[in-house]
Amino acid sequence: MTTLHLHVDSQFASPYAMSVFVALHEKGLAFDMSTVDLGAREQHAAGFAGLSLTQRVPTLVHDGFALSESSAITEYIDEEFEGPRLYPTQPRSRARARQVQAWLRSDLMPVRQERPTEVVFYGAKAPPLSPAAKEAAAKLYTAAQSLLQDGAEHLFDQWCIADVDLALMLNRLVLGGDSVPSRLEAYAARQWQQPSVQRWVNQRRPPL
Amino acid sequence: MTTLHLHVDSQFASPYAMSVFVALHEKGLAFDMSTVDLGAREQHAAGFAGLSLTQRVPTLVHDGFALSESSAITEYIDEEFEGPRLYPTQPRSRARARQVQAWLRSDLMPVRQERPTEVVFYGAKAPPLSPAAKEAAAKLYTAAQSLLQDGAEHLFDQWCIADVDLALMLNRLVLGGDSVPSRLEAYAARQWQQPSVQRWVNQRRPPL
Ligand SMILES: [Ca+2]
Ligand SMILES: [Ca+2]
Ligand SMILES: [Ca+2]
Ligand SMILES: [Ca+2]
Repeated sequence: MTTLHLHVDSQFASPYAMSVFVALHEKGLAFDMSTVDLGAREQHAAGFAGLSLTQRVPTLVHDGFALSESSAITEYIDEEFEGPRLYPTQPRSRARARQVQAWLRSDLMPVRQERPTEVVFYGAKAPPLSPAAKEAAAKLYTAAQSLLQDGAEHLFDQWCIADVDLALMLNRLVLGGDSVPSRLEAYAARQWQQPSVQRWVNQRRPPL
Repeated sequence: MTTLHLHVDSQFASPYAMSVFVALHEKGLAFDMSTVDLGAREQHAAGFAGLSLTQRVPTLVHDGFALSESSAITEYIDEEFEGPRLYPTQPRSRARARQVQAWLRSDLMPVRQERPTEVVFYGAKAPPLSPAAKEAAAKLYTAAQSLLQDGAEHLFDQWCIADVDLALMLNRLVLGGDSVPSRLEAYAARQWQQPSVQRWVNQRRPPL
């Protein structure tokens, strides 16, 4: 029997853990979950470091195979398991989805730093954006508006996992009280209502 | 007729541009190349920003389809074109290759900052590593030693694109004069001799 075990952060605040959590739910896969206390540096302790080569959450263990890095995990889930596709099948759309995922994980650092996901999941207060963060936010809005057709519910023909990642990034700003173009705010709000996303949003969190 | 045009940084110092350059060569694909002056912020100017959604090099334009983010590009090349595989075909090896790529692009920041690729491609001097960079380097060595079988030439059964990325990351330290475990140093040196890699290393570079 196949077993799937997902390791996530104990605050349920990692956007990357959320992406894998949503992917597993969208695929209709049953999985167990346990938490790693990043504040206590538990990810570097022998137990977890022996499991995760990169000492990071999320880590998915599938029948003894431990895999970290969320985009690698969601690609693996999509290739290994039946069910709704997590990535577009059309080659250029699939490429674009991968571009969005890679970009959101390696750029826009000032937004990620000044609008940490505690703003999203704990309602933490957010001070005004620095000029560097404003510039990064503007770049995010330009790219997202270019990708999203007017009124579109998804980036591509159908929902894909990059929609979750993009909505999370936009919601850092929406929930931080920043002025986000209304089309993007509406897209992020719709994405946020997806039941698999709401399951993550509604996790019972320990105090910060 | 298919056309491929690759936009890279004018210093030929981007490890991500190198990764795509090597991928195209390994696939035996002909392509044109032009350079973007990052020092002059040319990537944010109207021309390039109109092409690259994420305003970053590398960007590959394939028959009018412009794609940025190196790992998305190499996945696209591998799926679209015949020739030697850039990613392993075995599912868990392919997952691991993606994990390595995603990790090297989103972690180990102190090593990337204190051992910029000018150390690798321009022989720039490197001051001693900070404690944070030493910790990141140790994590890199642990992961690489866990992945690489003793004396193995590649991460997996055959060469893959993640070998290029890992060798570049290790060579930041080797060429920075840091003490790198000999097994890893030998691996990186062998990878560096790959003709496609040497073509990138030997690009004629403008002064820094
Ligand atoms: Ca725990
Ligand atoms: Ca792992
Ligand atoms: Ca130029
Ligand atoms: Ca692009």
